[in-house]
Amino acid sequence: MSLELSKRIQRLKTSPIRKLTPYSEQALAKGKKIYYLNIGQPDIETSNLFFEGVAAYKGKILKYEHSAGLKELREKIKKYYEKYNMNYNIDEILITSGGSEGLQFTLNSIFDENDEILIGEPYYANYNSYFDVLNIKCNAVRTYAENGYHFSSLEELEKNITKKTKGFIFSNPSNPTGVIHTKEELDNIAYLAKKYDLYIISDEVYREFVYGDNKCISFGTYKEIEDRVIIIDSISKRFSACGARVGCVISKNKAFIESVYRQCQARLAVPTLEMIGAIALYDVADNQLEKYRTMYEKRRNFIFNEFKTIDDIIVKEPEGAFYSFVKLPVENAEAFCIWLLSEFDVDNETIMLAPGEGFYATEGLGRDEVRICYASDENQIKKAMNILRQGLKEYRKIKQI
Amino acid sequence: MSLELSKRIQRLKTSPIRKLTPYSEQALAKGKKIYYLNIGQPDIETSNLFFEGVAAYKGKILKYEHSAGLKELREKIKKYYEKYNMNYNIDEILITSGGSEGLQFTLNSIFDENDEILIGEPYYANYNSYFDVLNIKCNAVRTYAENGYHFSSLEELEKNITKKTKGFIFSNPSNPTGVIHTKEELDNIAYLAKKYDLYIISDEVYREFVYGDNKCISFGTYKEIEDRVIIIDSISKRFSACGARVGCVISKNKAFIESVYRQCQARLAVPTLEMIGAIALYDVADNQLEKYRTMYEKRRNFIFNEFKTIDDIIVKEPEGAFYSFVKLPVENAEAFCIWLLSEFDVDNETIMLAPGEGFYATEGLGRDEVRICYASDENQIKKAMNILRQGLKEYRKIKQI
Repeated sequence: MSLELSKRIQRLKTSPIRKLTPYSEQALAKGKKIYYLNIGQPDIETSNLFFEGVAAYKGKILKYEHSAGLKELREKIKKYYEKYNMNYNIDEILITSGGSEGLQFTLNSIFDENDEILIGEPYYANYNSYFDVLNIKCNAVRTYAENGYHFSSLEELEKNITKKTKGFIFSNPSNPTGVIHTKEELDNIAYLAKKYDLYIISDEVYREFVYGDNKCISFGTYKEIEDRVIIIDSISKRFSACGARVGCVISKNKAFIESVYRQCQARLAVPTLEMIGAIALYDVADNQLEKYRTMYEKRRNFIFNEFKTIDDIIVKEPEGAFYSFVKLPVENAEAFCIWLLSEFDVDNETIMLAPGEGFYATEGLGRDEVRICYASDENQIKKAMNILRQGLKEYRKIKQI
Repeated sequence: MSLELSKRIQRLKTSPIRKLTPYSEQALAKGKKIYYLNIGQPDIETSNLFFEGVAAYKGKILKYEHSAGLKELREKIKKYYEKYNMNYNIDEILITSGGSEGLQFTLNSIFDENDEILIGEPYYANYNSYFDVLNIKCNAVRTYAENGYHFSSLEELEKNITKKTKGFIFSNPSNPTGVIHTKEELDNIAYLAKKYDLYIISDEVYREFVYGDNKCISFGTYKEIEDRVIIIDSISKRFSACGARVGCVISKNKAFIESVYRQCQARLAVPTLEMIGAIALYDVADNQLEKYRTMYEKRRNFIFNEFKTIDDIIVKEPEGAFYSFVKLPVENAEAFCIWLLSEFDVDNETIMLAPGEGFYATEGLGRDEVRICYASDENQIKKAMNILRQGLKEYRKIKQI
């Protein structure tokens, strides 16, 4: 066939989060205002430390920096982890272009085609892009809105493991569900990782965003399995610096880190100025981070109270991150999301949500769910939830649900 | 086996350019000064336009930008191409994190495992990293120092094509050889691409660095095969901004560009500030670019005259870029490079070169060759070439070559 593309790339689908973009563009063209609850873009101003750090850069030649990332940045990250009683030396920390590159390098290093990965579904939709390209199969363990998306049991996890399972992955606190997995859940995963010789890929970019009595335990504190733990981290959410694209891969497994390092060499380096800015961000005071956390917690409380006023939706109180995964009383949440953009408004305003299906591996699941991001202010959340409430009513009337 | 890594990653070797780093570190530790002729890092100051552009950035939240890259940057690139009589609309231009990411995305999109790529050897060593990870096999067409690394004939290229060949790749002007392929050579490649239904991946990051009577023709000017041409470009060398990691993929093939765009979405975005700086760099005046070119041309002339004073090396006058690929009168150039670092000096100074072997696909080739980068000033080149001259004499005496 003429100029055929690779099978790898034919497997890769358009991001489900971005699939609705044409509809939002049409809505904008019609003059509608949209509240974007579909993407995890914080509304918090990036600390000026970042921009000041960049402005203070004295280099005359913007040259390739070390493939592993600037030493000073790796030292800052080392110190940051010491606050959490985790001791990594800088050789165990590699800077990547966002957590995204770190995740891709990690999966590249571990999985061959048709290898399997243990994962709770729903999970971060972008993982599917990485799985699709590498042809990694999911051993998907279903979790439920009714149970706040916690893992139900050790057995439930264990029965999904096969001989081809090479690792486990999750984000904790979770994008997209807002669940924070408990010590018991982590213990179970650690037990299984040992028993079945699995890597644990722990995406902890929302580490600070923990609410109420919940506690987020890092897999970096599990010393007895430290050779199989890989932590993915990023400055994107912690410091509201998504556009800097600075993340890292952390592990005490030397062979693994060395394999990621070879990938770092192949792409030469991470951009210099963004690393310079990132170094400065690690000086953001702890009480400032606590202010961010408190603000998100207030929003969490606020949106959860709003949820209570919407008929027939199923959602538990989110525990961390800044997402809720909500079960709606509709058959097809994607159709509902498109309808909200193309046919509905309240005073010429509408909302954009992320349909749930793209967050699942198992065909057909998530059709009645949506991910809602609450990284915006309470006034906006209030208006958005009013649109959701009224939209649902109207939609169910039309569809006779 | 316990915690095994993927076959993919086991294929990926340490960068041959960076393999000598331990020896250079030892040399430094002994107090030696090293002239680094091994890497393509220009010594030209990055235009202040970059830093001023970044400083003028008014954003308060460093947020995810469009996965395709900032529109303004894509428009600047469009205009830049118009100067060369190539017309691309901005939908045909995707910003990547350096040319490196662009190359990886391109190969991902085209090649399945065990597919083949037509390539002249020696070629840019980093291509091997990408080929190894994807398990792409090389249909390597040997080129020779004696012939200035030009392709010898259409037949020589054609006989290397098989049913599994999906594309051709080169950098033109060439890293590592400094060759600029002629119109006849490009015509031959275009003919073969049509006849055998191949993509042409044209890495043109050194486009401006053309010396003497040589002319560099872009594959973007071949209208009759525009659906199979992919141009890889970058600001790294053109504007001496390697550390910005801003490149792009350009093609009129819609399905291909769309497949690269899906990969762009999967990694979310390119860093914001570096794109802002890059936008400003496209305002660097043409006469400034011409000054860079003239300076490199002077260095090219200078180093070529120095080469003439070194016994028994084989090298033609480099035509473009800022590299020479030199055949040395030694059996093992890598051993010689290591010897230069660890056992030789002139007034406590030595040189670092890139051994040739890593630039070949065919086992055993390139053993007596090195790549020499002349992106440094004439005074340094003079000293470095004196070290090479004396080093070769001494080494041949010891080894009785």
